[in-house]
Amino acid sequence: MPRYMIKIEYDGGPFAGWQVQATGLTVQGLLAAAFEGFCGEAVTVQGAGRTDAGVHARGQVAHVDLVREWDTDTVRDAVNAHLRPHPVAVLSCARVADDFNARTSARRRHYLYRVVNRRADLALDRGRAWRLPRTLDAAAMQAAAQCLVGRHDFTTFRAAECQAKSPVKTLDALAVARDGEEVTITAVARSFLHHQVRSMVGSLALVGEGKWSVEDLQRALDARDRTACGPVAPPDGLYLMRVDY
Amino acid sequence: MPRYMIKIEYDGGPFAGWQVQATGLTVQGLLAAAFEGFCGEAVTVQGAGRTDAGVHARGQVAHVDLVREWDTDTVRDAVNAHLRPHPVAVLSCARVADDFNARTSARRRHYLYRVVNRRADLALDRGRAWRLPRTLDAAAMQAAAQCLVGRHDFTTFRAAECQAKSPVKTLDALAVARDGEEVTITAVARSFLHHQVRSMVGSLALVGEGKWSVEDLQRALDARDRTACGPVAPPDGLYLMRVDY
Repeated sequence: MPRYMIKIEYDGGPFAGWQVQATGLTVQGLLAAAFEGFCGEAVTVQGAGRTDAGVHARGQVAHVDLVREWDTDTVRDAVNAHLRPHPVAVLSCARVADDFNARTSARRRHYLYRVVNRRADLALDRGRAWRLPRTLDAAAMQAAAQCLVGRHDFTTFRAAECQAKSPVKTLDALAVARDGEEVTITAVARSFLHHQVRSMVGSLALVGEGKWSVEDLQRALDARDRTACGPVAPPDGLYLMRVDY
Repeated sequence: MPRYMIKIEYDGGPFAGWQVQATGLTVQGLLAAAFEGFCGEAVTVQGAGRTDAGVHARGQVAHVDLVREWDTDTVRDAVNAHLRPHPVAVLSCARVADDFNARTSARRRHYLYRVVNRRADLALDRGRAWRLPRTLDAAAMQAAAQCLVGRHDFTTFRAAECQAKSPVKTLDALAVARDGEEVTITAVARSFLHHQVRSMVGSLALVGEGKWSVEDLQRALDARDRTACGPVAPPDGLYLMRVDY
């Protein structure tokens, strides 16, 4: 059966996450229903990243097998028609080789985390960023973040329910930058542990607030102990931006 | 009575606009209720711009008179507490002179209009931009826009229900730029007619689609006739960004 790759954008706010669950609306479930509405086939939509409830995507990638050869623009438009009114949109669709797998073929995943430093509640960015009233020292965060880059045992930054075989991962990049009242953290790796980005962001925020030194962050990593982690940052600020193959 | 100036951000989506009306939730009405909740006074919140239903603000400005002298950070935080859970937030508060008037003292208003050129529905930017599937020629729009800059009779770009005394206004700047799939239009003037920005954007979109030439836009302006205007752009993409005093 011909295999198709789709790139997807969604607002994670209304969903119980990417992955189909016993209860709750999920992005994967909505996509499967939209494909079934379009071509009448019960499909499995295999995504590159299983984003949690409330986590957004600008460039999630998935693959799906369909019985027929379709014009890829037709697939995109038809699936989008069946996704309405949910805040999920197929940005593009392409035919791929049978051995392409959105999850296992991914070479690099790019995440963005948005922090907004201000006293006032978020109105336009509600649910789309983590508001922190105290001004973070982005330069200190950027410096400290570099101790997490590379191949490490990330047990400290791993959720208890993580299903990965090994806690050892290679973090390709972790960059912190300020633009006005916003602090952005970008994280790039072949793959991440469950809650790894939010756990790293939560600990980096402690550095930005002056509560942790670089050494404290290094010690937390070296501890390989979940209890050494700072508070996990909320899902609102996290975006799956891109997946490289 | 001491006069306070507040800067306000809001998501225009859930509101019937800025101005208090017989029916429907308005930003002005919510702010008045929040002030009353905070200090028990029935106040009038005078805004710089009467944004329409669905139009957003990153920097609306208003003034309000209170009986007491308050710490301005206290005003900001207390009013915000009373605004929850509505997507309206007071960004800052300052004491101003008695003759400061948010509407009549304004020297310049800055609006931003966001167009997104893509086939897929907007998921993360739903209600926050105007989606147009056809790729607009931003350079052609930018060139054409310059014929609207300056002092003109803007009758063509004025809503029938506009209450301004004169249709003659001075447009200080109108700039069109592309950044990826997004086209932004910024408009700066001391004051605007009702629906002026959305009317200008709608006509500029015709230029961007190649349906209108620069001469067509010039002819529309010269006609001083509402029926010569292109379709009015939707409120979703419009933001009141800043007011200068």
